[in-house]
Amino acid sequence: MEPVERVVPHFQEQLEQLKARLLEMGGLAEEEVRLATKGLVDRDHALIARVLSGDDPLNALHMEIDHRCFTLLALHQPMAADLRAIVAAVKINTDLERVGDLAVNIAEAAVRYATHPPVKKLIDIPRMASIAQSMLRDALDAFVRSDMALAQRVLDEDDKLDDLKTQIFRELLTYMLQDPSTIEPALDLVLVSRHLERIGDHATNIAEDVIFIVSARDVRHHAADAGL
Amino acid sequence: MEPVERVVPHFQEQLEQLKARLLEMGGLAEEEVRLATKGLVDRDHALIARVLSGDDPLNALHMEIDHRCFTLLALHQPMAADLRAIVAAVKINTDLERVGDLAVNIAEAAVRYATHPPVKKLIDIPRMASIAQSMLRDALDAFVRSDMALAQRVLDEDDKLDDLKTQIFRELLTYMLQDPSTIEPALDLVLVSRHLERIGDHATNIAEDVIFIVSARDVRHHAADAGL
Repeated sequence: MEPVERVVPHFQEQLEQLKARLLEMGGLAEEEVRLATKGLVDRDHALIARVLSGDDPLNALHMEIDHRCFTLLALHQPMAADLRAIVAAVKINTDLERVGDLAVNIAEAAVRYATHPPVKKLIDIPRMASIAQSMLRDALDAFVRSDMALAQRVLDEDDKLDDLKTQIFRELLTYMLQDPSTIEPALDLVLVSRHLERIGDHATNIAEDVIFIVSARDVRHHAADAGL
Repeated sequence: MEPVERVVPHFQEQLEQLKARLLEMGGLAEEEVRLATKGLVDRDHALIARVLSGDDPLNALHMEIDHRCFTLLALHQPMAADLRAIVAAVKINTDLERVGDLAVNIAEAAVRYATHPPVKKLIDIPRMASIAQSMLRDALDAFVRSDMALAQRVLDEDDKLDDLKTQIFRELLTYMLQDPSTIEPALDLVLVSRHLERIGDHATNIAEDVIFIVSARDVRHHAADAGL
């Protein structure tokens, strides 16, 4: 296939629009996580139901952003940093869609959890949710502003989530061993903590993509400068 | 940025090489899943250790494939089906890397599981692993051969994994309720079944990408024809 030379105006404008849509999608995904966690903590069936039925806007945005990326690649044939930014947008779009799926998974666990008496007052799970949400927000801000330092801070936050996950697991195990009636609801809390950990992983992926766009340096797998 | 017209030879040859590398990566990822599951079932510490220390080749391949995708996009500025194939390759590459991570997660659970007496003879977990592995293999074959029918079969297989996961959960819950000493190891089996389910999800993602490349039709979110 031969490259076709075209003059297409407003590339930067369209790239800015793409970024704005990604921010919007990030906002939606973050809100779903917040609502699902609040639904779990408050045993609020209406909130939970809203998350379970509410991922259509996120899915529509996912397809629209994918389409925008393809159009930008096909019509503008961008090079270097712009090319990296658009390919990163494709990946970030996938990450955000998965965050939406994970919010639904949390809501599904919340439905089951609400059928049992509470195992304990939930403190560390909302804390994990709040860290994961701000990691997500910071990672997207870092993408939009090409802010390497902010992206690096997102990577540093991930350890906190990991520590909380381990702590939650140990605590719930103690409950389960002491009182078998807590086993089933406690299992759902364990799963929720894993879902929140994975949301943090998606924020980490986004932050790594930002570092790659800005520096053309691959920080995944602790690689040395990868060039490109 | 203005598009630069270049004559770059052998685009199709380089695309074939990219596909061959993705197949190789898929083979590696699948093998890690097989070894991790076998390590869990046979309580084989040497196998488990091999998975825990062995994701360097996968990570190196991940970065190489990403680099190949960028080079193809930057130098050849492909259009239409070729563009979709390369963007899909970027996504598939991410999926396969995550499969490798999940194999490591299974091996980590296997380490903990081996410190307890076995909860039960493991039958459904290796069955899940075998389904997830063949979904992965079929999804990649479908990508390389642009085989829509095979991609569709991968999507159909996903229900089997979901059913097995639910069945495993119910069975393990019964063990935990009857005998609290099984709680800790049974929890690891629950987590392993979730990891295997997610490996199936990655195969499903790949199959959806294949259908998108071949038909330019977005089967995600049950969308109608998306055009492009």
